[in-house]
Amino acid sequence: MTEKAGLVVPTTVRVRYGETDQMGVVYHAAYVVYCEIGRTEFMRVAGLPYAEMERRGFLFVVADLSLKLRDSARYDEELTVLTRLVRIRHTSIVFGYEIRAAADGRLLTTGETRLGCLDAQTKKVTPIPSDFFEKMAACQAVAE
Amino acid sequence: MTEKAGLVVPTTVRVRYGETDQMGVVYHAAYVVYCEIGRTEFMRVAGLPYAEMERRGFLFVVADLSLKLRDSARYDEELTVLTRLVRIRHTSIVFGYEIRAAADGRLLTTGETRLGCLDAQTKKVTPIPSDFFEKMAACQAVAE
Amino acid sequence: MTEKAGLVVPTTVRVRYGETDQMGVVYHAAYVVYCEIGRTEFMRVAGLPYAEMERRGFLFVVADLSLKLRDSARYDEELTVLTRLVRIRHTSIVFGYEIRAAADGRLLTTGETRLGCLDAQTKKVTPIPSDFFEKMAACQAVAE
Amino acid sequence: MTEKAGLVVPTTVRVRYGETDQMGVVYHAAYVVYCEIGRTEFMRVAGLPYAEMERRGFLFVVADLSLKLRDSARYDEELTVLTRLVRIRHTSIVFGYEIRAAADGRLLTTGETRLGCLDAQTKKVTPIPSDFFEKMAACQAVAE
Repeated sequence: MTEKAGLVVPTTVRVRYGETDQMGVVYHAAYVVYCEIGRTEFMRVAGLPYAEMERRGFLFVVADLSLKLRDSARYDEELTVLTRLVRIRHTSIVFGYEIRAAADGRLLTTGETRLGCLDAQTKKVTPIPSDFFEKMAACQAVAE
Repeated sequence: MTEKAGLVVPTTVRVRYGETDQMGVVYHAAYVVYCEIGRTEFMRVAGLPYAEMERRGFLFVVADLSLKLRDSARYDEELTVLTRLVRIRHTSIVFGYEIRAAADGRLLTTGETRLGCLDAQTKKVTPIPSDFFEKMAACQAVAE
Repeated sequence: MTEKAGLVVPTTVRVRYGETDQMGVVYHAAYVVYCEIGRTEFMRVAGLPYAEMERRGFLFVVADLSLKLRDSARYDEELTVLTRLVRIRHTSIVFGYEIRAAADGRLLTTGETRLGCLDAQTKKVTPIPSDFFEKMAACQAVAE
Repeated sequence: MTEKAGLVVPTTVRVRYGETDQMGVVYHAAYVVYCEIGRTEFMRVAGLPYAEMERRGFLFVVADLSLKLRDSARYDEELTVLTRLVRIRHTSIVFGYEIRAAADGRLLTTGETRLGCLDAQTKKVTPIPSDFFEKMAACQAVAE
């Protein structure tokens, strides 16, 4: 356990015009993208940017995805994506997300994604490299 | 029960270039869009196009979304989205999806979405209109 | 000159919900995607699918892009993308597009894209392979 | 002429994974979105956020769009969108863009968009409101 245990990384995204739909609010699939932005920043803060993982020959591929959409966001609103690491296993990693409006804190969406680690060449499941595993494990959400 | 019970509507989509990512396969959020295309065609076949529902002042808003991504698809591949109605309630409706490669039938993704019915003016939850409810209920997946 | 000279390939796309924005009509960047779908079908009809070109180690990369947006399209509308080959040169190819509403024929968008041919390995400009060049040249718009 | 004449507003965007395609670089249509982000920030800096214009009943709709794509950007790269106001007329406004890699300054894309001002209710062309016109005109690129 390090001081990073239970790390929650906040990332700000501003809603783009093209992310709205004719309901006048953010299109639901955009939240899937916001989650990805959130875990990208989580990995950067935790010490190993995902781009670096790909350069080293590993892919993290979304295997399971679930979202609960509770409230809607509008064009040009700033949102906060709060990302935490729910658990990490030999070949997979689960991130959890809470997306809130930055101005008033209202909860928009919660979600989880499980990603599998693949060898970029063979596209086969492969163990998460140990340095990444350790850096991430140190940031794992507590009381899970 | 009517002759449409257990209706499964197949829709074909061809993977667009912009739907791929640098892994060389379809970006995961694209499957969320494919599911929406699937339920749009389901409603059309079942007898009430969604666009017509909006013209009448109702919105169906995604409240829960879950996907299992099992295999990957490539640029220009034809995919078959198989959509069924899992259940319909007073104010919500659950669709289920199976996305397969059209050429070889391999299973890519399964998923479910629950949509809530809102009044387009007030944005409040409202009962699904009865003609739509009945047309959809007649198409519900059996043995659920 | 062959019977294909002046070939115009029509492709149908149906507007997806996520392609609308809060103006209630199709977001402008979606037309860029529709153009790509159009030229993909043009190449298929002309005899050499673009996916095949990539398998052979060539990339066609958009270098210039221009669109005039004249009218708007709505969710679930069927659009017709009419694609023609404006000209083909040693290392580049220009496609022209006309996007119309399928139901009433109203003109939505016209545009052109110039694509350069790259070697997929080196990412350097390279001559368009001769079989592709000939198949395309035979379809070139006349009197241009 | 005010101190804002020739205003150039820089905006940073970080390339999202889903904005790449199987070429391993940013998909060309993403630059259209980056331009929109650029002009949104330009209007905010110039003193009248676009969201405010829509609340007041005006829409700015893209009528013409042109891009020259000169170099490619990669996943997770930071880009700088430099936006300037090329000219403003009674009912339309032209923005110019230069998109560069933030790290090394290499030029990726240049472009222009012309937007027409519409009344949000009638969807008819309408004069740009005078307070917006004046704030923007004061920021116009010089010597154009």
